[in-house]
Amino acid sequence: MAAQRRIDLVLDSVRRLLRVGATANLLNLLQKQHPADLAQVFTELTERDREASFSLLADRHGRLAMEAISELGPEAGATLLATRSAEDIARLAQEIPSDDAAALIDNLPEDLSAAVLDLMRPKESGVVENLLEYAERTAGRIMNPQVFALAEDLTVGEAITELQSNREVEMVFYLYVVDDRRHLVGVVSLRRLLLVSPETPLKRIMSSDLISARVDMDQEEVARQVAAYNLLAIPVVDEENKLVGSITVDDVIDVIKDEATEDIYRLAGVSGDERAFTPALESLRKRLPWLGVNLATAFVAAGVVALFETTIDLFPVLAIFMPIVAGMGGNAGTQTLTVVVRGIALGELTWSNSRKALVKETLVGIGNGVALGICAALVVWATRGNPVLGMVLGMAMIINMFVAAAAGTLVPLGLRAVNIDPALASSVFITTMTDVFGFFSFLGLATIFSQYLPRVP
Amino acid sequence: MAAQRRIDLVLDSVRRLLRVGATANLLNLLQKQHPADLAQVFTELTERDREASFSLLADRHGRLAMEAISELGPEAGATLLATRSAEDIARLAQEIPSDDAAALIDNLPEDLSAAVLDLMRPKESGVVENLLEYAERTAGRIMNPQVFALAEDLTVGEAITELQSNREVEMVFYLYVVDDRRHLVGVVSLRRLLLVSPETPLKRIMSSDLISARVDMDQEEVARQVAAYNLLAIPVVDEENKLVGSITVDDVIDVIKDEATEDIYRLAGVSGDERAFTPALESLRKRLPWLGVNLATAFVAAGVVALFETTIDLFPVLAIFMPIVAGMGGNAGTQTLTVVVRGIALGELTWSNSRKALVKETLVGIGNGVALGICAALVVWATRGNPVLGMVLGMAMIINMFVAAAAGTLVPLGLRAVNIDPALASSVFITTMTDVFGFFSFLGLATIFSQYLPRVP
Repeated sequence: MAAQRRIDLVLDSVRRLLRVGATANLLNLLQKQHPADLAQVFTELTERDREASFSLLADRHGRLAMEAISELGPEAGATLLATRSAEDIARLAQEIPSDDAAALIDNLPEDLSAAVLDLMRPKESGVVENLLEYAERTAGRIMNPQVFALAEDLTVGEAITELQSNREVEMVFYLYVVDDRRHLVGVVSLRRLLLVSPETPLKRIMSSDLISARVDMDQEEVARQVAAYNLLAIPVVDEENKLVGSITVDDVIDVIKDEATEDIYRLAGVSGDERAFTPALESLRKRLPWLGVNLATAFVAAGVVALFETTIDLFPVLAIFMPIVAGMGGNAGTQTLTVVVRGIALGELTWSNSRKALVKETLVGIGNGVALGICAALVVWATRGNPVLGMVLGMAMIINMFVAAAAGTLVPLGLRAVNIDPALASSVFITTMTDVFGFFSFLGLATIFSQYLPRVP
Repeated sequence: MAAQRRIDLVLDSVRRLLRVGATANLLNLLQKQHPADLAQVFTELTERDREASFSLLADRHGRLAMEAISELGPEAGATLLATRSAEDIARLAQEIPSDDAAALIDNLPEDLSAAVLDLMRPKESGVVENLLEYAERTAGRIMNPQVFALAEDLTVGEAITELQSNREVEMVFYLYVVDDRRHLVGVVSLRRLLLVSPETPLKRIMSSDLISARVDMDQEEVARQVAAYNLLAIPVVDEENKLVGSITVDDVIDVIKDEATEDIYRLAGVSGDERAFTPALESLRKRLPWLGVNLATAFVAAGVVALFETTIDLFPVLAIFMPIVAGMGGNAGTQTLTVVVRGIALGELTWSNSRKALVKETLVGIGNGVALGICAALVVWATRGNPVLGMVLGMAMIINMFVAAAAGTLVPLGLRAVNIDPALASSVFITTMTDVFGFFSFLGLATIFSQYLPRVP
């Protein structure tokens, strides 16, 4: 709350200073902000104001400007960065850690990113290019290759001296210990160094039972490890167990947030990289295919209704209650699906305990179906004066909510088993299923019991 | 991957050793595991095996057993803990930090938790009871009150000595500096201590521009601060700015995961504290009210269809395509809703930039509506041979997808403005709206253009 108020004050001042063209005052205000706050300010400004204030800051306080756009995230950050010349970007990119620079450069338009890499100092562009060679979403992409490591034959005193002479190394909590060929052999905490005498060999106090990530490991798996073992950073090694980088917990938090966003989005058929302010045309292009698939499945469901056109012709009242069966099945199915997909994502639900989940969900489905089916049946009986119509609706709801629960459990588990993200395709399967089964059971039962239904007068 | 394979191996051994009753071997295997791995093993075992192995471990390695169930999370952990006697629990609770103990005890059945608190050593139960007095979901509930603080008049050398004599203090990265009345006045990193001479006064090297959380601050806000400023821990202060505890980044990760789960769940009408293996009856009780609300709104939508009963009577073909309009509006509305709700949760979307979001979303809605409406119209024209029926369907889809986009943006922003969680109530609003507008626009247009529609032969 307090943070938002402070940012609102800064925002007001930035807008005012931009309007009156008081650039010196504006610069003075901006350079006193934390990069994360600047990122928030940039987010809330209009595009023109954002570009104007970023440009001002980039000219005078390159590092701060770059830290701020790193906090914005690679897509939004690259959009802002792309307003500058390639020369400028090459200069600015050298102000921040190479993993952050790589993420931004990777999101620039292709010709611009090539030009920037050409213009960077060979050593630095080499580091960035190496990072970009790792596959997307792997540990290699988010690791910081400038990892501080100590040789295993040092003493604690020598290690402290080495640490003191590497002042620019930031965020050191674990000191990784490597052998003479840079194989990762142990870890020692900074605090541990303080607790023993300077002559102690590092080897004696280091822990060699350490958790590391392979450079090609999926970022989601890295995040899971860091979270599970409560780590502040995880060393990254190549296939020969040589130390090549480290990933800190703040990057892991970003991965966790992105994965959660992706799960939420995929359940709703939105692509994982869309954000609130993705341009309209791009959003349209991203959402249209999924809606197209839904339209196709909606026609399938409509085809089921068409099978019963003669029944509806005789009893148009069925059209009134038909969507209730499909809709309630869809709602119940979405509940089950969400719990199952999230259970899989959190690692609580695995193939081995899936039968238990299926039993539970079908019980819940039948329970909900019976409770709500009876309700709906009574309402229809009361309002339409025909008990059979109510019974048909209630029975169809029970059947459909059972189907919804079973499908809501089995579909995501099945997709997971064949290595498809269960969040991705489940929801369209489930709603198609509940529509088809809903219409079929309701109109089918109505056809069977048609002699007891109310005729059009 | 590797981690899961290792856990699978452990699981197999645990099951085998339990079956043959080789408790000594089992204990030996369990006590070599990391608490996080044990938590995963417990999750995947059957209830009986889980209780048997936990009980074995709790008797012999109380701390490890408690660390493992802390990793399970407070609900699942408390369920397992509740299988022990109050005396046992009181003894075990003292093995872990008081914030973790408080979270577990808080989730025990009421009479058991009261008995446990009575049986704990007065000093420790006092700490736990103090924590439980903070409102749920506030910083106070997850902070560790045993925070290590240094007096501001110390030198660096004295500070290091103090640190060395407090060996049991775990996870120290930031050293908080307090005045003689324990007001938080600064922070210094462990690393900084190593870089200056021992005689330096702490005051000279500490940073007094530090970010802290109030004890009554919402956990979500705490998490946002820790994530935004890339902190490893945040000090917690009371209303007088006195240091009362600290929250470490691993607890923040749990908060971020729980908030994401809650957002995902609420969008689907599932209560935030449900998990994959919540007992069926409890799940039923939690999901039924939301489905009940949905049933009521489904009857409202059915009421709209009923208004057009005579039109349907004349043109039963309308019943076939009617669900398409409502369903596509629902899908498009859910996409918009999801992006907006997540944008609000991530802090990217605020009241001040909401107009921009509204313009964007309605453009996307109309764009999708036009593209899919034309498709659907052509399909209907081709299959039913009547262009007007197709046109009515297409126009209704465009109208409904526009309504879906507008409602999908405005409803969550409106709920947010009146301080209701936008994820909580939005989805039922949106689907009701798209059902009502969908049926109304489709059947209304059909009534207007009825003279051009295909009569039942």
